[in-house]
Amino acid sequence: MSAVVNFAKGEGAYRVLSQADIIAEIAALPGVAGILGGKPSEWSIRDVADGYINAVFIIDGPDGGVCAKQGLPYVRYHGESWPLDETRAFYEASYMRRLEPVVGRLAPKLLHFDPVLQFIVMEKLSPHVVLRGALIEGRTFPKVASDIGRYIAAASFHTSDLGVPFERKFDDIALFSGNKSLLRISVDLIFTDPYVEVWRNRFVPELSAWAKAFREDTELKTAVAIRRNAFLSNRQALLHGDLHSGSVMVTEEDSRVIDGEFSTFGPIGFDLGAFVANLVINWYGQAGYARDEAERAAHRIWLLDQIAVLWNAFRAEFIRIWEANPDAGGDGYPAAHFADPAGRARLATIREQYVADIFEDLVAFAAIKIIRRILSYAQVADFLVIEDTQRRAEVQANALAFARAVLKDPARFRDFGAFLDAIPRFEGTPLDPALAR
Amino acid sequence: MSAVVNFAKGEGAYRVLSQADIIAEIAALPGVAGILGGKPSEWSIRDVADGYINAVFIIDGPDGGVCAKQGLPYVRYHGESWPLDETRAFYEASYMRRLEPVVGRLAPKLLHFDPVLQFIVMEKLSPHVVLRGALIEGRTFPKVASDIGRYIAAASFHTSDLGVPFERKFDDIALFSGNKSLLRISVDLIFTDPYVEVWRNRFVPELSAWAKAFREDTELKTAVAIRRNAFLSNRQALLHGDLHSGSVMVTEEDSRVIDGEFSTFGPIGFDLGAFVANLVINWYGQAGYARDEAERAAHRIWLLDQIAVLWNAFRAEFIRIWEANPDAGGDGYPAAHFADPAGRARLATIREQYVADIFEDLVAFAAIKIIRRILSYAQVADFLVIEDTQRRAEVQANALAFARAVLKDPARFRDFGAFLDAIPRFEGTPLDPALAR
Repeated sequence: MSAVVNFAKGEGAYRVLSQADIIAEIAALPGVAGILGGKPSEWSIRDVADGYINAVFIIDGPDGGVCAKQGLPYVRYHGESWPLDETRAFYEASYMRRLEPVVGRLAPKLLHFDPVLQFIVMEKLSPHVVLRGALIEGRTFPKVASDIGRYIAAASFHTSDLGVPFERKFDDIALFSGNKSLLRISVDLIFTDPYVEVWRNRFVPELSAWAKAFREDTELKTAVAIRRNAFLSNRQALLHGDLHSGSVMVTEEDSRVIDGEFSTFGPIGFDLGAFVANLVINWYGQAGYARDEAERAAHRIWLLDQIAVLWNAFRAEFIRIWEANPDAGGDGYPAAHFADPAGRARLATIREQYVADIFEDLVAFAAIKIIRRILSYAQVADFLVIEDTQRRAEVQANALAFARAVLKDPARFRDFGAFLDAIPRFEGTPLDPALAR
Repeated sequence: MSAVVNFAKGEGAYRVLSQADIIAEIAALPGVAGILGGKPSEWSIRDVADGYINAVFIIDGPDGGVCAKQGLPYVRYHGESWPLDETRAFYEASYMRRLEPVVGRLAPKLLHFDPVLQFIVMEKLSPHVVLRGALIEGRTFPKVASDIGRYIAAASFHTSDLGVPFERKFDDIALFSGNKSLLRISVDLIFTDPYVEVWRNRFVPELSAWAKAFREDTELKTAVAIRRNAFLSNRQALLHGDLHSGSVMVTEEDSRVIDGEFSTFGPIGFDLGAFVANLVINWYGQAGYARDEAERAAHRIWLLDQIAVLWNAFRAEFIRIWEANPDAGGDGYPAAHFADPAGRARLATIREQYVADIFEDLVAFAAIKIIRRILSYAQVADFLVIEDTQRRAEVQANALAFARAVLKDPARFRDFGAFLDAIPRFEGTPLDPALAR
């Protein structure tokens, strides 16, 4: 009865691929080799791993390049002492295939997936850069926030009870329910570790009093518990699951979402909140960078604008897709129940309420993700580049105080105006949490 | 990538079993044959199918009996023109196996499951009777309401984020996500059909005005939509999915839940609401039976009492199990987050809020299930035994008016006192809905 086949693993022998192995694998794929051009001896390969988890390479040939990624049986950054299911590559590939028809060129194209080697080959993004690093440098990108808003709108609508019959959704749920190793990381690092003492936590000693205050804050832990339960129980749509600024690659004209290995069904506000959290993190981090004051101020105004742009783009696109697909077959709001004038009018109200509920989730998940990046494992460069740990802690305390207010007093943050307005007010938060608001 | 193996079907040739085939199948199972005793030639078999869907038989031998059930490739009552996936027996057997350790003797014991034939053999319940028929006869059972309350408490706690780590829950979700044919029936017959014109709807002509009023009631359809979305998206716990009075077998001392083929993850209030709905249906139905007035009144008081007994038993048992299992490993409320005095006190509040939320769901799902049994397919004997269709329609109009009030004015039904108090007030509802409250 427990004969659930592990279809995520191919039949055969997994091995960690060397750079030479990767060249050989690609040489055996005519479609991919054709993109590179020339002979394998003319190809070059370089390690471009940026995140904590996976092995990632760029392979270039005379005609073009591709990106290759292998799921390792451990966390790359941490080594074999932290084992991790290599089938995460299966879930990343499944996520890309599931969403390709609806997000199109807002993600790189999947070229190949090998379930035995847990080996993905995808479109090389060039001259794209990772958004996080570019934001730290103070660079701005006119399209990214609206692109990400539209990406989340399309991905979530078309995997929800609005966009597909539940049979299709349940097939997706059955598949992504297998992605347990990665979801355990999300549950622990985002929702659990920041509020207990655990070996993985990485905050600087200067933040110890704040970490202790958070561990002892029953009100805060209750607010987090509500969202942890929603994250695990509300199967609203297929999520990316880790949509921070390190999972987005950009140029001035183009934005792409990468790294879907944390994909899971959950509340739509979780992906939106993750992206917003990382813009807020960058906003607070800016205070710790040596930079011309006028430049810093201008960049910060741009960042706050992007949060609003993201939300407005998501909201408009989500409602536009919903209105444009009255016969999508979703079981949530069957067309036949809302066909008369009163029904059509009510459906407009229902749509407004639906996105309003997503907004409420967004705000809370953003706060939880901010906290997680300061107190838990896998911290972010936005803060790590501030080498003076006292200064880093001061900047992080600002972000922690903001996030705490959002979670403990949600009535203050019912619209985005209030949310954006509050961010600067938490600068100058003291390192002694007892003295903070 | 869509290589989801259909593990619900065994490898081999399915066939519909004759009574002789069933005898032969059981003769080949030493453990089961031993329960019957004697030789197969001494065994008798009889068709006891009671519900709409499955073939069910009792096989008796010199020493004892067993119950056998086969999933047919169609709806038994309706015939081959309504095809239905026979793997529903796999899901029923999976449900029984998953819950046996936690509900024990509140369900029959599963003796055998054959995935090729979709053939289940289980404990014969004797001298048990189906609760629905007994209630129609005006019989009472002192233990059933508290037994069902305890059954739902144990089944739901131990399959939720309170009782198991999410990895275990996600394995269960992956398995039960395959039960799509039966869930489609639930979605259509419970949540969709009653509010549109569809060939399957079975209400008597005298109720046409009520059916039309419901089809045109945007407010009502909106309230139903909220619960339909929760049913499909809130994976709170493993549900029975069809826990009406026809799915319960009773004696004075014993109660057993049967027929778990509609099992799915969903909101806990759905199972509670289904059972409550069928007690309410019986309460309204009593007015249509020829019976001594004092007997009728006494039975109705007993029925209302049972609704309260069910809820109180569920509530007490659910909280008792939660308190008794602080280290169950559930990710919902990790023990380490609520270990200090303030945390422990908060956890008590959280538990109260958790069951209060279940209560709110119960009330709404009960109303939806009442409506479904009057306007949709698969009506219930409680009403069908009233042969005078005018009288039947009058009784059903009472129940419809009550259910509509519950859905459209939930603030009136925030506690069980208000819910029980309102039931009798809807007797005498006119057949013209325009004249009704």
